[in-house]
Order: sequence, then structure tokens, then C-alpha cells
Amino acid sequence: MVNLNADMGEGFGVYQIGNDDELLHVIRSANIACGFHAGDPITMRRLVVEAKQAGVSIGAHPGLNDFWGFGRRRLDIKPDDLEAMVAYQIGALRGMARYAETEVTHVKPHGALNNMAAEDYDLAHAIGRAILTVDPGLIYVALSGSEMERAAKDLGLTIAREGFADRRYEADGNLTSRKIPGAVITDPQEAADQVVRMVRDGEITARTGESVKVQAESICIHGDEPTAVAVAKAARDGLEAAGIAVVPLTEMNLKRADAAVGGA
Amino acid sequence: MVNLNADMGEGFGVYQIGNDDELLHVIRSANIACGFHAGDPITMRRLVVEAKQAGVSIGAHPGLNDFWGFGRRRLDIKPDDLEAMVAYQIGALRGMARYAETEVTHVKPHGALNNMAAEDYDLAHAIGRAILTVDPGLIYVALSGSEMERAAKDLGLTIAREGFADRRYEADGNLTSRKIPGAVITDPQEAADQVVRMVRDGEITARTGESVKVQAESICIHGDEPTAVAVAKAARDGLEAAGIAVVPLTEMNLKRADAAVGGA
Amino acid sequence: MVNLNADMGEGFGVYQIGNDDELLHVIRSANIACGFHAGDPITMRRLVVEAKQAGVSIGAHPGLNDFWGFGRRRLDIKPDDLEAMVAYQIGALRGMARYAETEVTHVKPHGALNNMAAEDYDLAHAIGRAILTVDPGLIYVALSGSEMERAAKDLGLTIAREGFADRRYEADGNLTSRKIPGAVITDPQEAADQVVRMVRDGEITARTGESVKVQAESICIHGDEPTAVAVAKAARDGLEAAGIAVVPLTEMNLKRADAAVGGA
Amino acid sequence: MVNLNADMGEGFGVYQIGNDDELLHVIRSANIACGFHAGDPITMRRLVVEAKQAGVSIGAHPGLNDFWGFGRRRLDIKPDDLEAMVAYQIGALRGMARYAETEVTHVKPHGALNNMAAEDYDLAHAIGRAILTVDPGLIYVALSGSEMERAAKDLGLTIAREGFADRRYEADGNLTSRKIPGAVITDPQEAADQVVRMVRDGEITARTGESVKVQAESICIHGDEPTAVAVAKAARDGLEAAGIAVVPLTEMNLKRADAAVGGA
Repeated sequence: MVNLNADMGEGFGVYQIGNDDELLHVIRSANIACGFHAGDPITMRRLVVEAKQAGVSIGAHPGLNDFWGFGRRRLDIKPDDLEAMVAYQIGALRGMARYAETEVTHVKPHGALNNMAAEDYDLAHAIGRAILTVDPGLIYVALSGSEMERAAKDLGLTIAREGFADRRYEADGNLTSRKIPGAVITDPQEAADQVVRMVRDGEITARTGESVKVQAESICIHGDEPTAVAVAKAARDGLEAAGIAVVPLTEMNLKRADAAVGGA
Repeated sequence: MVNLNADMGEGFGVYQIGNDDELLHVIRSANIACGFHAGDPITMRRLVVEAKQAGVSIGAHPGLNDFWGFGRRRLDIKPDDLEAMVAYQIGALRGMARYAETEVTHVKPHGALNNMAAEDYDLAHAIGRAILTVDPGLIYVALSGSEMERAAKDLGLTIAREGFADRRYEADGNLTSRKIPGAVITDPQEAADQVVRMVRDGEITARTGESVKVQAESICIHGDEPTAVAVAKAARDGLEAAGIAVVPLTEMNLKRADAAVGGA
Repeated sequence: MVNLNADMGEGFGVYQIGNDDELLHVIRSANIACGFHAGDPITMRRLVVEAKQAGVSIGAHPGLNDFWGFGRRRLDIKPDDLEAMVAYQIGALRGMARYAETEVTHVKPHGALNNMAAEDYDLAHAIGRAILTVDPGLIYVALSGSEMERAAKDLGLTIAREGFADRRYEADGNLTSRKIPGAVITDPQEAADQVVRMVRDGEITARTGESVKVQAESICIHGDEPTAVAVAKAARDGLEAAGIAVVPLTEMNLKRADAAVGGA
Repeated sequence: MVNLNADMGEGFGVYQIGNDDELLHVIRSANIACGFHAGDPITMRRLVVEAKQAGVSIGAHPGLNDFWGFGRRRLDIKPDDLEAMVAYQIGALRGMARYAETEVTHVKPHGALNNMAAEDYDLAHAIGRAILTVDPGLIYVALSGSEMERAAKDLGLTIAREGFADRRYEADGNLTSRKIPGAVITDPQEAADQVVRMVRDGEITARTGESVKVQAESICIHGDEPTAVAVAKAARDGLEAAGIAVVPLTEMNLKRADAAVGGA
């Protein structure tokens, strides 16, 4: 059993981007942009309704407040400021979710914020505190093995560790930098093979040939590559062919961690 | 018994505006800007905590997405788009309210949006639908006698009719245009007299001398005039001297209207 | 001899929109978005270079500062504020034009601003004053017969009257409202016929069959309809087949009007 | 002979900040915010006119496009993108300068951008290329001894080296971090003493007592400290009492560097 997630609703006003309509019928959990790096209330409202109809669980996809940069530029933000900005974005999506009489059930940071929080415990912890305050039942989708996973554990949050279908890994378990050729897996069969092995065996083959342990309850599908839909479908078909159910995050039987004594 | 409300949290980033700290101890309900015409998550978080400590109930103060114009420029917006934007702002503040373990209990539109909705039933109704969807228990603060009051009634929402301490009225019950000298009452005693008469007798004296009926459960205090704090204090002192309790909106015993048959 | 113009560079950050690459080789003058309703410095820099290479003259396409609404929402703006905002946008594009060692040679307002200025002399005049201040040699592209044409004349500016290839006209010379079916001409041959007749004979056939005088030195091609490129090509081919040269605005031999005595 | 400069026009819409009116009569060159980190066209127009009247030369004060953060948050920006953004901002101010029939004569980056460019040659060079393209005669105000000074030299630009009246220096010539107590000099007399010694002797006393060489043609006065105006006045009075003329940058007889062979 595993979850497939994808980022969605990253247009703004007249601007459209991504393959939301198609991906919504392949994935099982949608990370919905909340108006900081992308997204707007009209798009959010439409997506929560469509996700409900497609049986897809929804999560907040908070980003840095950097519209021009689409939240992909690292930005020197104080953890305390970040916490408020994430709480705001979660709250906004929770408001919109009422249009589908549904609930926001997870949080997955976007772009540069996700990368920064994976490396920086203070930022990862700030995101976790926003979750704990606004709705402690929310699942914190955290890069497997990252500072996010550690902070989420310390805060006693429910964690879904995240792996990638379409990204190559290094021997140390980190993602291969996009600056290295082959960092993005565009061949659907290769992506499917990696995902099946990750979910079934808890390991993948690194770029340099080694076997590497990667434990993930949720697999991220990027929506903005031209090959995104084909990769997503191959991943899902491969998993199901291997007898692995692909379910919403809410059906993954994730448990809350015990909060660290003394908190953070 | 009456409520005093004021707009708050209308700074942005490094920018500060208004007299939030002083007003918070005079009024009983705060309309908190939600990041569209002004306001940001850090300010919202601070204010919900301070309002809780001051015994002030909090409401969303949604505005048009026009930062440069501070939400004071009328803008041609579709009711359906407006509805989503208001729902988003209410949701965002509800998220931030968790920082004070408190609840958002009312909604009062800002600036040009308030003026437009007072005159335009479709916009007033769109705001009401956002309330109904996100939290039907929220009090819709509506200019007494306006399309907002009518739309709120048709939707079966709880209404607080709003009057003004510091604005002159015309004989037909409308506010005197700011273009006419004397439209803003800056003398604290005059403001106090108008408010006491409005609350006790349900009428005020118009600019041209006539008695006019104005029924209001909530009195708005503008925070951005230099005289704002003095006017607010005079209004509160005057009311209390007349034996009228000044309470949060949540203590006004407001009742939900029966929704119109067939809705809108 | 006539000019064809189109709006361009209306993306923002990662967002792309329109058919700039194709249209650039059909039209002869580009109206480049300046970062208020759309557009950004990176796109502006790229376009001024590409326009230079394509032999296309460039103009500023200033809009209202309403990114979410793409400058299509009417907004209550003071003429004096508008003037500064237009001057800023023209200045910004003039800066970027240095990347192609070329000059900005015209100004054409965008969307709701264009519609508002066509009807409102004060706004049209404010745009004209911005032109007069920043560079009085700039051509003011003004809807034929509009308040823009009148204001431009009063200010003694050089005017290019604008007609439309892909919009139906009413018997009174106004454009048919987009709310009426058939308002947009999507058939390339029909568009070409209208343009040729407009340029050669100074008249077109109205929606209701009457002949209407329309004098235009520049024909606008909308870039955002799916049929935009086909319509543009048909218009240009039709004009050239009729022996009418299609040239940049700078080659139209436009003359500055005599400024009205006493200004505006 | 020396120049005093200060950042100005850093409000936005209804928001005001700083002490522009008072500082304008103490300094001799104004760095005007250009709408990215702060500032707007209306403010820019007003300031260019007031600066002209006060005999103050004007420069562009370009910042990162981060309004909420007031351009004080470091942000991962590509040099090529930065170049376009700086060119845009310079161009915009040049447009507004026509309202005073004056010219933009210098460029001084803002906040985090200034800090980043002082350390990062590629960013400093990108700013220099924007200057070279839009107007190669513009003076590049560069922190004395920084990568900005080096890049400006390599590009053959005119440089004004900048020192600080109100900041303490370390023994290595760098500014004392604001995290260290005493980093900001708030005593007017101390600031005046430091400035006079810097201009007359080309050295100052470091925080730890050593004499340090600092060569500066322009002294920056920060406008946002409560003590700003007092410090500025003391600096100017001290300089003039020491027989040192305080002049606009344009009167500093600065010379263009010889561009490095092969450029950068």
C-alpha cells in the first residue's frame, strides 16, 4: 500500500500551468498551492471540489511569498515568520475545503521551502509548529530521512515519508542534483521500476549502482515535466500490477509520533 | 447594550498604520485585515493574541486584492470570484486564530468592498455565501439598511447592523459623502452624543437637522483619523455614562435570520 | 499603407501566455506589457531584442496595477495617479529597450485601462500627459473616434488611430460588446475582408449591415484567441494582396497634432 | 569635498516610512526606491521634484522584488535575472525624472541586494551591466573595498566609494555585524567624528581600537533609525566645520574607470 501525491493548482488568475485535470485521476493526494508562490482562491475552490469527486485527499502546499520566482528561489526567512505564513496558508485552504464539505488532511511544502526545510531543522520545526497549532491531526509530508522527518517526530506529528518516482538518488540517499544529467527520470518504465522496488523492498538503485534504503509512504509525482502524466500512469500501473494498492494519504494508517520529551 | 468595532492589523511587512494598541482597549470587537488589501500573517497572529487578552472578539476584515490602493478603489469584480476571495480570507484568519485558541466570530468587509456591497445585492450576497460555506455561525456586520443587511437576511445569517460614531448622516439615512465638509465628526463630544442617541433612541440628527432612524447593534470606530482614539474613548465613556453596556459582538444576543424560502 | 499591432510579453515569471513568437513575424508593431497587469523585466528584455530582429517597432503597453485580474477589471483610479503609473511603465520599457539599442516609439494602454480611457477624457488626458512628459515624440495609439483621440489631439501628440481586424462594429462606430454573439471575428477571411475595406475605403460593414466610417492607421490583432495567428496572417496577406504595405508605426508618416490653445 | 546620500521614497501606497522631508535638506544625493522592495510611481514623481528643488541629485535605489520583506531578505537570484530587474528599475526612475526635467545620475542597490553584491562579484557585475546598458554615465555607488567596487572598475564605470556615518567598522574594514551591540552609531557627535576623520584622513577607528583605512566619496545616512536626522545633521555640520564641502555626487569630479581588457 502506498500513496501517490502531486502538486496542483499552481496557476494564478488568467495563468494556467501543469496537468491538473489528467493527474487528478492518477494520483490519490493533491498538494494544493495556497496563494503565496502560486495559486488563488478561485483555483483552490475548483480543485477541492474536483479532488473530492476524484476520491483524492487534499493537502496544503505552502510556499515562500515569492510569486515571480514561483517559490523556487531560496529566501532568507526567519522561522517564526515562516511559521505564521504556513499557518495562514493552511487556514486559507481549510476555508476553501468547506466548498467540497471536505477536510484538509496533509501539508507538503513547496519548492525552495521544501528544499530548505529538508536541510534546516529550525525551518522544518517552524512548519511543524504551524501544523500543530492549526490542526495537529494534519499529516506532515516529509522527505524521507530529512530534517523535516526529524522535526515532525520531535513535535509528535503524523508523518508520511516521501520518495520520488521521477528523481534519481545518490548513494548517500540524497536526490541527485538537477545539475547532473539524468537527475530527472523521464522514462515511464524506469520510474515505475524504481517506485515498485522502493515500496516493495524499501530500497532503490542509486545513480552509481549501489542499493540504497529509501522508506516512503508517499511517492511524489512532478506535474510540470512534459512526461509527467505518462510517468504518473506508469508508476500507478506498475504498483498495481505488483499488487500494491495506491491509496489516499488518509488511508495509509499513519500514526502520530510520540512528541519528544520537552518538545523543541 | 451595544458593540464597538474597529478595523485593525492594516500594516504590511515593515509598514505600520493606525492605532491598534490603543484602540484595542477601547473597542470590543476587532476587524482584522486578512492580507488582501492590507495585513499579513505575522500581524494577524499578533493581533489575535492581543485581542484575546483584551477581551475583544475578532472578525475577518476581507478586502479587494488591491494592495497599492489599500482596498479603497472600487474594482469591477465578479460576485463568484469575490465569494472565493472572501472565503479564503476568512479561512486564513481562522487558521491564525488558533494561535490564541480563539474563534473568528464575525465578518466585516473593508473599504471599497464594503461600499460596493452596501449598494449591490449580488456582491453582498456573495460575501454572505462565503460566510455560509466557511462558517454559518459567523456574524455578518452589515451597514444598517443596506443591501448587505438584505442579503444576510435572505441567507439566514446572523446580522449585526452597523452605525457610525464619527460619520454624519443625511436625511435619507445614508452617510454624508466625504466630499462634503463636516462628513467626518472629529469632535469627541459630538460623536459620543450621536452614538448615545443612536443606541438609546434608535435615531440620530441628520446633517440638515432632521431626525433619522438608525438601528445599530455595532458602532464602527475608524482608526486612521488623528482623532480616532479620542473619539473612540468619548463614545465608550458616553455610552457607559448613559448606562449602556459596551460588549463584544458575541455577547449581543444576535439571532440568525430565517433564510428566505428558495434562498437567493 | 497601414500598421498591424499586437499585445505581447504578457507572461509573468514561469507563466507563459499568448503566441508571441509566431505573431512577431506577422505584425509590425509590438505593444509590450510593462509589469503592472502582466509582464516582467526578463520578458521585456527578450522581446525588445526579438522585435528589433524582426523589424517590429516597440511600444509600451501600460496597464492597471492588477495582476490577478490581468488588467481586465475596471478600477477606480485617479487620473493623477494613473499618469504617474503610465510614466513609470513607459520609463521602464525605455530602459529595457537599450538592450536592443532601440527606442520605444508608441504607447497603447491595456485592457480595462484602454476601455476606460476610450470613454473618459480625464483618464485619456492623463495617459497623454505621461507621454508628453516622458517622451513627447511617442505615438499615442488611440481607438479611432474615442476620448483618447480627442485628448491626444488636445495635447498635440502624434496619434495613430486604431481599428480592429477581429472585432465586429456597431452602426454607431463602437465595437460590438463581447456579450453579443459574433462580437469576435474568428474567420480569417472575414477579418481580412474587414481590414482591407477599412484601410482602402475608410469604412466597414456593421453587424447590422450598415456601412460605417472607420479611419485607422493601425490595426490591432488580439493574441490570445486560439485563432489569433491565423487571423493575423490572413489580415496581412489580404492587405498585401490589395497592394497595401504593412509597416511599423514609425513608417506611417504620422504627424503631431497642434496642441489645443490653453492645453487641457 | 564629500557627498552625503540617503535612501528615500520607501513608502508604498498609503504606507509612509522614513524622514524624507527632513533628510532631503541635509543630504545632497537621494537614492530613490523604484517599486520593487518599496516605492511607487506617485512617490517617485513627488521625490524627483522635491529633490530638484532642494539641489539634491537623484539615483535609482533598486531592490529585490520582495515587498513583504522590504528587500531585506537575501534571495537566491540569478545574475542575469537581476540584471534585467535593475535595468527596469533604473529605466522607471529615468521616466519619472522627466517630471523634474532632471536626470538620474547614480545607482545604489538596496538592503540585501547591496549586501549580496558587496560579497558576490557575479551579482555586482550584473548590476554594473544594467548600468552600462541603460546609461553608462551613471555613477555606481559601491561599498568601499567590495566586489561592487571591483566589478564597477572592470566594467569601466564611474564609481563613488561609499562609507558609513552611523555604522561601526571592524579591524578588517568590514562593517560590524548588526548582531553585535554598538554596530549602529546613534550618538550624533560620534558619527560626525567618524565621518570627518574618514573624509579628511581616509581612515577611521575600528570597534576594537585599530586605525583602518576607509576611502569614500559618498557617506551613507540611514533614514530609518529614530536618530537618523540628528546623525545626518551632525555629520554635515561636522564636515562643514572642518572645511569640507558637502556636495551632490555630480559635483564630486568622479572619473570613469578604464574598462578591464576583455571585460568580464
